[in-house]
Amino acid sequence: MAKAAPPVSPLAPAGGFPELPPVAGVRFAAAAAGVRYAGRLDVMLAEVAAGSSLAGVFTRSATRSAPVLWCEDCLARVASGGAEGGFAIVANSGNSNAFTGAAGRDAVTAMVAAAARALGIPSAQVLVASTGVIGEPLPAERIVGMMGELRDGLAEDAAAHAARAIMTTDTFPKGATARVSLGGGDATIVGFAKGSGMIAPDMATMLAFVFTDAAVERALLQAMISEINDRTFNCVTVDGDTSTSDTLIVAATGKAAMEPIVAAGDPRAEALRAALHDVMLDLAHQVVRDGEGATKFVEVAVTGAADEADARKVALSIANSPLVKTAIAGEDPNWGRIVMAVGKSGAAADRDRLTIRFGGIVVAENGQVARSYAEAAGAAYMRHQELAIGVDLGLGAGAATVWTCDLTRRYVEINADYRS
Amino acid sequence: MAKAAPPVSPLAPAGGFPELPPVAGVRFAAAAAGVRYAGRLDVMLAEVAAGSSLAGVFTRSATRSAPVLWCEDCLARVASGGAEGGFAIVANSGNSNAFTGAAGRDAVTAMVAAAARALGIPSAQVLVASTGVIGEPLPAERIVGMMGELRDGLAEDAAAHAARAIMTTDTFPKGATARVSLGGGDATIVGFAKGSGMIAPDMATMLAFVFTDAAVERALLQAMISEINDRTFNCVTVDGDTSTSDTLIVAATGKAAMEPIVAAGDPRAEALRAALHDVMLDLAHQVVRDGEGATKFVEVAVTGAADEADARKVALSIANSPLVKTAIAGEDPNWGRIVMAVGKSGAAADRDRLTIRFGGIVVAENGQVARSYAEAAGAAYMRHQELAIGVDLGLGAGAATVWTCDLTRRYVEINADYRS
Repeated sequence: MAKAAPPVSPLAPAGGFPELPPVAGVRFAAAAAGVRYAGRLDVMLAEVAAGSSLAGVFTRSATRSAPVLWCEDCLARVASGGAEGGFAIVANSGNSNAFTGAAGRDAVTAMVAAAARALGIPSAQVLVASTGVIGEPLPAERIVGMMGELRDGLAEDAAAHAARAIMTTDTFPKGATARVSLGGGDATIVGFAKGSGMIAPDMATMLAFVFTDAAVERALLQAMISEINDRTFNCVTVDGDTSTSDTLIVAATGKAAMEPIVAAGDPRAEALRAALHDVMLDLAHQVVRDGEGATKFVEVAVTGAADEADARKVALSIANSPLVKTAIAGEDPNWGRIVMAVGKSGAAADRDRLTIRFGGIVVAENGQVARSYAEAAGAAYMRHQELAIGVDLGLGAGAATVWTCDLTRRYVEINADYRS
Repeated sequence: MAKAAPPVSPLAPAGGFPELPPVAGVRFAAAAAGVRYAGRLDVMLAEVAAGSSLAGVFTRSATRSAPVLWCEDCLARVASGGAEGGFAIVANSGNSNAFTGAAGRDAVTAMVAAAARALGIPSAQVLVASTGVIGEPLPAERIVGMMGELRDGLAEDAAAHAARAIMTTDTFPKGATARVSLGGGDATIVGFAKGSGMIAPDMATMLAFVFTDAAVERALLQAMISEINDRTFNCVTVDGDTSTSDTLIVAATGKAAMEPIVAAGDPRAEALRAALHDVMLDLAHQVVRDGEGATKFVEVAVTGAADEADARKVALSIANSPLVKTAIAGEDPNWGRIVMAVGKSGAAADRDRLTIRFGGIVVAENGQVARSYAEAAGAAYMRHQELAIGVDLGLGAGAATVWTCDLTRRYVEINADYRS
């Protein structure tokens, strides 16, 4: 969280922040509560209509934060039935309320109670998410004190403000949207996310919120987003470090003109799944594009592994290797380091069946450099801002794709700053 | 492998390279073969007397190099009996002969044959190790062409030259020695190593060679060094990247005035084990002290884990975390990142039982910052060049200690250089 606004990442989407249309049944507000710094948006409130389906995925860290533990409890209660009335999500930046002991639980309780009171809903239906520094007490009273203003400011078209309020070291706010035809009427999906460092499976973004007016049964929605999360947020990595606060919450209000989707076999479920996937993948890619100090966006696609788990191991071993990532930063087509990362991954691999490609260029095959490979071509390719590394293990049908960025001096500068 | 000699690491041992005494039954030579750069020592030959016990530990990478595969075969043959005559070790820097296909096997064969011919021993008793760039054909003929000069230059007191010849990005040569009383007479141990980047378990150094005149049965020596390796070279990490070439070879000539040690229960076995441990730990620490760009030497000691494996997971998760390592570079007592690294390690952990110490300072306990902790004290501690991070999980008796260095801009600079 820099004091002076850092320059926007060179990998930021060219079009800037997208126009996020209203989602029927959802309203947003944002405010400057001074959680850590004065004069910037740092708290957001989302109000979600009664009757909505809610689902979530959270960090699996053994030291996860008080807000994460609260949300897990909330969703478990919702899953067992009994949610009457609407929902709220309160999220703040500046302080993650992680590793704050009993004070952390008290801060969650205070925030939840204030939002419940302001919106007239049960406390158990208020989700909370916090991001920022770990281990310092969260001044919840500052957020509580803004709750009236937040409630009064709720508007259908304020998602962009909410997206900005959850930023920490992010250099740009991250939003995505899609329309999907679900028979009867179209549904809208809107999402926003924040994340820049401490990004790795699972999950790869610290906070992401997705809203749709589609009507979909809660358990089906949960199954859907757990699976999509595994192929989107859990497939991006900046530094291999996993946050104590990672939170994805998806709300479906059911306000679109459609019959609810209640069965996985319903063809509309597949259409909704595809549209949610697009939005979540877009957000996940934006998180990588805002990776601290990043100058290259890198896709690592592994094929031919013994199984999917092995493919993922190899892809993440490459994507997390400091030596691969620094070579990319230096525009060095150092494929030897990719061989190294394959070798250390723990996945089954046969050196002599390995094929490595940079974009369309075959660099290495059959256990050695390809006869057709010219170093000048590799070096020219590495100067691109968007890179594709392909690895075929030649063993089976397992495949996985992950996305990462390079490791630059700037990453070290950002993170070696006193208490970033 | 920098073209201009880089400045010596600030963490290099104050005393410089130690005086390495002769080891009866071992002679060394080094030469400048021009493997990659002209005019620097880049190949070493060690001659080991007939009747010696040889043992080794190698990288477990699935893409390990042709020299590593050759050495594994050699030692397996030696283990099954049948080694008559002496042994040789040929090692070069500048090229790791890894991922070089059939040409790589041919290069090993040529080097081995040349050394065998020069010393009049069977090819199967010549071990070979190569370190340097991956994926480029090794010009073995340059090494073969120097073999006569190497043989003629063999001397008992040339270990320092040999240590220098295996350096790559190392900023200082690494040597260690010990004397141990084994009943009847003293034995001498001498070792040298190279390693600076691509350093992680297993193993943590690319090349290490240890020689002693102690008399110890081969299988017992192998068991001993496998176990010691696990607590020394396998407990240091610079960047979490594992080399395709990691090689540890230990030779015991039996020339000391003593009866051979043949049983693990022999009290002399414990004395020898302790002395070998001292030498190997010293070398392993020197590898970390020469970590690329390192400015801090960091011990991470984990106690109270459910078991030793969990303790090791937590220690390595902390030691390999880019966010922890950049905080250390920035002298930031950012203990929240240690909580994060504990949480992501996969080991059993209970946030509320966790204790974190910086040296003697209790920073966090019972799931929150310690009441007695003052940020100023933490910040002052982090300014030391040698740091000790202590984590107690409060769950069981599992303990493990690993050693690492910080992650600096200089690490990125070194590794973003075109084909370092």
